Amino acid sequence: MSVERFSNETGPAAARIMARCAELRAISADPNAYERLYLTPQHCAAAERIIGWMADAGLAARMDAAGNVIGRLEAPDSKAPALLLASHFDTVRDAGAYDGQLGVITAIETVAALSRSGAKLPFPIEVHAYADEEGTRFYTMLLGSGFVSGLEGPETLIKSDAEGVSIAEAMRRFGLDPGRVGEARRKPGEFRAYLEVHIEQGPVLEAEDLAVGTVTGIAGQIRGTVRVTGLAGHAGTVPMPMRRDALAGAAAAILAVEAVGRSDPDLVATIGEIKAEPGASNVIAGAVQLTLDLRSTDDAKRGAALTEIRMRLADIASERNLAVELVVASDTPAVDCDPKLIAAIDAASQTIQGRSIHLVSGAGHDAIALGRLCPVGMIFVRCKGGVSHNPAESITEADAGAGFAILTRTALSLIEQA
Amino acid sequence: MSVERFSNETGPAAARIMARCAELRAISADPNAYERLYLTPQHCAAAERIIGWMADAGLAARMDAAGNVIGRLEAPDSKAPALLLASHFDTVRDAGAYDGQLGVITAIETVAALSRSGAKLPFPIEVHAYADEEGTRFYTMLLGSGFVSGLEGPETLIKSDAEGVSIAEAMRRFGLDPGRVGEARRKPGEFRAYLEVHIEQGPVLEAEDLAVGTVTGIAGQIRGTVRVTGLAGHAGTVPMPMRRDALAGAAAAILAVEAVGRSDPDLVATIGEIKAEPGASNVIAGAVQLTLDLRSTDDAKRGAALTEIRMRLADIASERNLAVELVVASDTPAVDCDPKLIAAIDAASQTIQGRSIHLVSGAGHDAIALGRLCPVGMIFVRCKGGVSHNPAESITEADAGAGFAILTRTALSLIEQA
Repeated sequence: MSVERFSNETGPAAARIMARCAELRAISADPNAYERLYLTPQHCAAAERIIGWMADAGLAARMDAAGNVIGRLEAPDSKAPALLLASHFDTVRDAGAYDGQLGVITAIETVAALSRSGAKLPFPIEVHAYADEEGTRFYTMLLGSGFVSGLEGPETLIKSDAEGVSIAEAMRRFGLDPGRVGEARRKPGEFRAYLEVHIEQGPVLEAEDLAVGTVTGIAGQIRGTVRVTGLAGHAGTVPMPMRRDALAGAAAAILAVEAVGRSDPDLVATIGEIKAEPGASNVIAGAVQLTLDLRSTDDAKRGAALTEIRMRLADIASERNLAVELVVASDTPAVDCDPKLIAAIDAASQTIQGRSIHLVSGAGHDAIALGRLCPVGMIFVRCKGGVSHNPAESITEADAGAGFAILTRTALSLIEQA
Repeated sequence: MSVERFSNETGPAAARIMARCAELRAISADPNAYERLYLTPQHCAAAERIIGWMADAGLAARMDAAGNVIGRLEAPDSKAPALLLASHFDTVRDAGAYDGQLGVITAIETVAALSRSGAKLPFPIEVHAYADEEGTRFYTMLLGSGFVSGLEGPETLIKSDAEGVSIAEAMRRFGLDPGRVGEARRKPGEFRAYLEVHIEQGPVLEAEDLAVGTVTGIAGQIRGTVRVTGLAGHAGTVPMPMRRDALAGAAAAILAVEAVGRSDPDLVATIGEIKAEPGASNVIAGAVQLTLDLRSTDDAKRGAALTEIRMRLADIASERNLAVELVVASDTPAVDCDPKLIAAIDAASQTIQGRSIHLVSGAGHDAIALGRLCPVGMIFVRCKGGVSHNPAESITEADAGAGFAILTRTALSLIEQA
């Protein structure tokens, strides 16, 4: 494809990307907030929409055994390792419109541009839209790409959501056979490289006045739950010294986790979800369930922080005569991006926006899972105020166009080098 | 009624009381926990059951305009102020089987015993079963008896439950006309005295090895909500120093309220319910809603504690760059029981169990509301471990019989004195 023709395509592609993000935004479990969780009717409806877009772009598209959408553009040499462009299409609760979906939709646009160019491909291209990256429903992370990469296996299916529904049961209700989830797994050697466009979710690009940045690595993260158990009782009749108040203990735990997170600039530690039982204004809470999210680009620091949190929780349990149990649901090491892919994204960025900049990702991404199968690279797009996981999440059409152009140029450079 | 005949009736009455508590226990919104809230299908089903029992006991029974069940046994002098025996039949979440319902069922048994005796009544007797004392659904207290006593009026109907359904709307769905709620209100002079049997919900009677105690007064209480507002954000990308984490601020608020409660043995302060928004493991909470329950038998101490809590919440708001708002939903002063009723209950207790003991109630009761209309007295029945608002709530049949016998003897002494 000539540079001139490609430049002419960026404007319409950017407009389509914004329109399709808005279209997916409308597929929500909550009419007042954006929410699309794994193995729900909204997952199904969004997958159908994405399959349609992939078909329009010339991809052979299907849902895999884990609920992911997989599109493939064949090449004369169908055995050559494919280039993989991907992101996810699930959301957090009360989400923004770009996290994940921007990458899926941009990847489809890039394939459409390559198809239209009539360029002879030296290898196939796949686009993957992963069905669960956020892990909102089952307190996991990277489930969709995890099933593809082998990071997750059948043993994961026993995990449950807040209503006690296991992944296996949810798959059955969705229409998937949990016994066949292994069929979603792909092999090392099937892919030559993984590229993902994603919003930055941080403030650096805005401060640098730049549309797009090159990611050099992704923080590792621990996800888990903390259960505090005390004794329920009447709020009017149990004297303060006799109480075993699980919610007061949980409050101490939240502040302890925050203090550990604050102890090193390379750490972030978050408790975002809490449930008190029985949860009535005039009843002392008997038990409280919390989530834990702990991240660092330094694996040793992350491990040490977890140990420190465990010690502080044990102190709270003994001071307050409570049981406090921390269960780690997942522990994912930090991942480095591939130097050659970093160089290719840098070169494309310099062409499109005059310069390139390097960023570290504090957020986890599907690139972590796919890093088990092939070299990975990521392209971050500026978002307003660095805000994400929030309905205020916002990008400009021009920046979406820059993300598309840089992904397409990066893909073209890999095609040329092959 | 002769003492001998009365003694013969205590055993069967106690057995019926236990059986009927178990019968009401089965009318629950949750198959795995006891829950019956105001203006729900379970409220309706339990009211029908109670109306049937009242009719069997010779009472003319009906539902009033607020959803309470009102039974009346007429006397030749129907204008004479009635003796009122009452309690409530709603529950907290994951409740025990005796809080409230024991008093309703015992009152019906007492009227049945008086009916069977053929005694000529010098005044009518009413039994009230109030439909909402706990305030679990609408973050209120004493709603049912409040509508009867005038403590609550039509202005209360705008309050909403967690789903945003107002009391007025809930009444319409239930089949009540919210415009007629004023018809539930009764006048001063209609009642000569109010008597209520209730489980102790504290450990004193068990420590004293006594079935029944005489209540001398009821603690006042404040109910309210605390809303902490910060800024939602991505748990992986917002550095700790830049966060405005509403859940960490709520944790500090919970510990501040606990500290104020611990500062004086006459105080108890409880946060029992918490809701974080959006409430996902990988999202920093943008807002948190808490309940506040603050009680003391000393009105001045309760007021001072509220002021102290307000100051500490303001400090948390300014330290953490959050908005923290405390809204008081209800503030009910402490209530003294009537000395003549205390003496009558004491005398009945001495006859039935050899001695009497005086207790203060840390829990609120419908007697607070009815204290606006007439003198009030309360009879506490021992419960296992002092545990209440908990499925482990437990009383013995023998103690239920003692409660029945002492209520009936107290009523007989008022009949004899009239």
